[in-house]
Amino acid sequence: MKPIEDRQIKEDDQLYVLHSWSKQKDVDPKIIKKASGIFFWDDAGKKHYDMCSQLVYLNVGHNHPRLMEEFKHIGEVPLSSPGFATASKAELARKIIEVAPKNMAKVFFANAGADSNDHAVKIARMVTGRYKIFSRYRSYHGATFGAGNLSGENRRFTVEPGLPGFIKFETPYLYRESIHFDSEEAAAAFYVDRLNSQILYEGPDSIAAIFMETIPGSNGVLIPPKGYMEGVRELCTKYGILMICDEVMAGFGRTGKMFAVEHFDIKPDIMTFAKGVTCGYSPLGGVIVSQAIADYFDGHVLMTGLTYSGHTVSTQIGCATLDIYKDEHLVEHAAEMGDVLAERLEQLKARFVSVGDVRHIGLFAAVELVKDKQTKEPIIAYGMDYGKDTVGLMKKFVGLLLNQGFYTYSHESSVIIAPPLIITAEQINEAMDLFESALAMFEKEYLFSDQKLMTP
Amino acid sequence: MKPIEDRQIKEDDQLYVLHSWSKQKDVDPKIIKKASGIFFWDDAGKKHYDMCSQLVYLNVGHNHPRLMEEFKHIGEVPLSSPGFATASKAELARKIIEVAPKNMAKVFFANAGADSNDHAVKIARMVTGRYKIFSRYRSYHGATFGAGNLSGENRRFTVEPGLPGFIKFETPYLYRESIHFDSEEAAAAFYVDRLNSQILYEGPDSIAAIFMETIPGSNGVLIPPKGYMEGVRELCTKYGILMICDEVMAGFGRTGKMFAVEHFDIKPDIMTFAKGVTCGYSPLGGVIVSQAIADYFDGHVLMTGLTYSGHTVSTQIGCATLDIYKDEHLVEHAAEMGDVLAERLEQLKARFVSVGDVRHIGLFAAVELVKDKQTKEPIIAYGMDYGKDTVGLMKKFVGLLLNQGFYTYSHESSVIIAPPLIITAEQINEAMDLFESALAMFEKEYLFSDQKLMTP
Ligand SMILES: Cc1ncc(COP(=O)(O)O)c(C=O)c1O
Ligand SMILES: Cc1ncc(COP(=O)(O)O)c(C=O)c1O
Repeated sequence: MKPIEDRQIKEDDQLYVLHSWSKQKDVDPKIIKKASGIFFWDDAGKKHYDMCSQLVYLNVGHNHPRLMEEFKHIGEVPLSSPGFATASKAELARKIIEVAPKNMAKVFFANAGADSNDHAVKIARMVTGRYKIFSRYRSYHGATFGAGNLSGENRRFTVEPGLPGFIKFETPYLYRESIHFDSEEAAAAFYVDRLNSQILYEGPDSIAAIFMETIPGSNGVLIPPKGYMEGVRELCTKYGILMICDEVMAGFGRTGKMFAVEHFDIKPDIMTFAKGVTCGYSPLGGVIVSQAIADYFDGHVLMTGLTYSGHTVSTQIGCATLDIYKDEHLVEHAAEMGDVLAERLEQLKARFVSVGDVRHIGLFAAVELVKDKQTKEPIIAYGMDYGKDTVGLMKKFVGLLLNQGFYTYSHESSVIIAPPLIITAEQINEAMDLFESALAMFEKEYLFSDQKLMTP
Repeated sequence: MKPIEDRQIKEDDQLYVLHSWSKQKDVDPKIIKKASGIFFWDDAGKKHYDMCSQLVYLNVGHNHPRLMEEFKHIGEVPLSSPGFATASKAELARKIIEVAPKNMAKVFFANAGADSNDHAVKIARMVTGRYKIFSRYRSYHGATFGAGNLSGENRRFTVEPGLPGFIKFETPYLYRESIHFDSEEAAAAFYVDRLNSQILYEGPDSIAAIFMETIPGSNGVLIPPKGYMEGVRELCTKYGILMICDEVMAGFGRTGKMFAVEHFDIKPDIMTFAKGVTCGYSPLGGVIVSQAIADYFDGHVLMTGLTYSGHTVSTQIGCATLDIYKDEHLVEHAAEMGDVLAERLEQLKARFVSVGDVRHIGLFAAVELVKDKQTKEPIIAYGMDYGKDTVGLMKKFVGLLLNQGFYTYSHESSVIIAPPLIITAEQINEAMDLFESALAMFEKEYLFSDQKLMTP
């Protein structure tokens, strides 16, 4: 492309582009002028630590030289529609199955997270002949009608009236649970028991699948208590319900394992993925199915599809991406760096009165802010992220972070920390220093200033 | 990518890849080894005329040198998530609005056809505050839950039980209409009147949008009778219903106009697009909205979004693609070549007893086969494309075409003809000669052999 002046880009953007999840008049976008590794520079020349990997997909960092190089080889595998076998599609499917849990057998490719979840629901219904789908409050699965109806937060309201048979249950969220448990295991037992009841109330024989983010990400990195995932797996097995884990955000090394399910003693029947499979360098997502499900479709028509299933370029970029994880030992590195980040986060919680909770696993973390540590009063009341009264306080904090050069986003009262997996210990410490400065300023200016707890 | 042996590709494909719309044991894919312009060569060394542009997206043909070159420049625009302004996103949005109908103002980018349609439905509901969505039988809009529920053919059954408020009406299909009309205008009046009644029965004030493929493609290139689209537009205006035209397949020059809506005296409120915007070189789709709708979202939150909205690479490829349409005058060329194709198709209809109908507009055409020209008995009864009794006769014909080196696909009893827009008159004639040979063989061997009209 011919270079275009920043002024012109912004003008055209404002005139011609609709931006997601926003009032357009509030949109005042920056331009990324240059990017490398965990850093990018905006059009004011400012350097940013990309502490959310854009939207938690840039696991290998910005402008990875091997992916830049791979684009130079586009065309060597000719563009082919889904009916053909292609080198990149076949190779990537093999590579994914090689790193997936042992029971996984085949991959259905889609374009990104949301549509992969739609296809997964369809697959579960085909295989089981059942139509009800359980998914959870405080989850996000995407914005198509299937994924939107799976989602358990307010972003699903625009796909309502909802799909018949989509049922919600609660995500364990111990920090805000009204009862106290003596152990994680006791909490897990409680939640699993409630789920069991709900399954009975809904009729086990009509339930095709239980759909979960292995670790809900957007809603604040809600790590399941010990024993919970295993308990859900048992219920699924008992009732012939398929267990579907959405690994769109948590998959591909984010949590310090290749897939987040590996933290638990479970084998899902279906997993969905996107983001990390190409690190966003080319749109790609998909559905991984168990051997049993793969076998089912040998003799039954897989009644779903899309023009770009197994897109030639995207799968080629996917192959190169998976090589990078392997050659750079990114998953192991993420686990190690997770320890560094964890230490800083626990310190944060100990030192700052506005930090209610920190949750972290690998390089997947959230800092939940509160107005009061004792009462746990959240900065933003549930569901107030969007809508008329877009709340200012969290926005202000994210703005302070941005001023420090710490780029990330928030949801409800939680700030997401999920840098590229290539980040070093030194960089984590530098970034967390910036975070602490911003937080100190935030507490001083907005929480505990004279006007104290000023609500916007 | 390192080269992989064909045998290995096929083995991995069979072991690891789930193919759309098929029993996996029936999948026996070829490999495209080389491709250029309107041709590709398979792993047996056979040369094919790509007469369906893969899945009607490769409008600029295979391996277009300018797009191959553009991939070498990936990275010059840094990968940015939707919240940023990027050169390629802003530029492509501007380029699209420049070629779209005059009332169109802004673009919301998505990944492909299906999800674009999901987002369009959501936008229509947001803007109108109404929830019912009209769409048509004999249409295909994609396989996510929104697009699937819009679709009016059997591929929607796996997204049922359906979305509340999704209502179907009939697509004008004069060839198979039980009553005779003296003119297209009379037919149009009839269908519009029926639609008007159905709107009244459903309650105009609850209807957000009427969603239509401008010209239904997959279901056999069903060109609306004169006056029909204008009649639907009038109803929409009268009742405050948004008119949404799905231009995923028909858009970007396919019909000899940039968008198929230009064949009619209408301005839709929303258009969706995909395929031709990048010609499949990188996944991209989107929603184009009118000035009125764009204005609405200045002050209202656009409650939809996706990770790759305005994907940097895809929009960069989109920019280069739109330049090609312009510089190579592809739309005008498609209109001219449409005349060449039309002549051959009309001859076909006159000469072959098995050709019930031919429908064509630009380089968008279908040949509908029948067992009997008088009774119009179709080769495949409605809805028998998939399912247990996958019907053999159309498959046999497509196989004969393939043997001739004429690559395309069929749906119901219609064969799609939609070559890359760069095709020459000479190539059209060569390809149609192959088509005629295959058709002669088909009639002789399967339709009018001794056993006559053998059903499989
Ligand atoms: C867990 C999860 N699933 C699905 C999605 C939707 O993915 P996409 O935005 O690519 O449709 C997201 C997006 O953030 C996600 O975090
Ligand atoms: C008119 C129309 N709309 C939507 C779609 C769905 O597009 P995709 O397969 O990219 O989801 C198609 C696919 O063929 C189509 O022809």
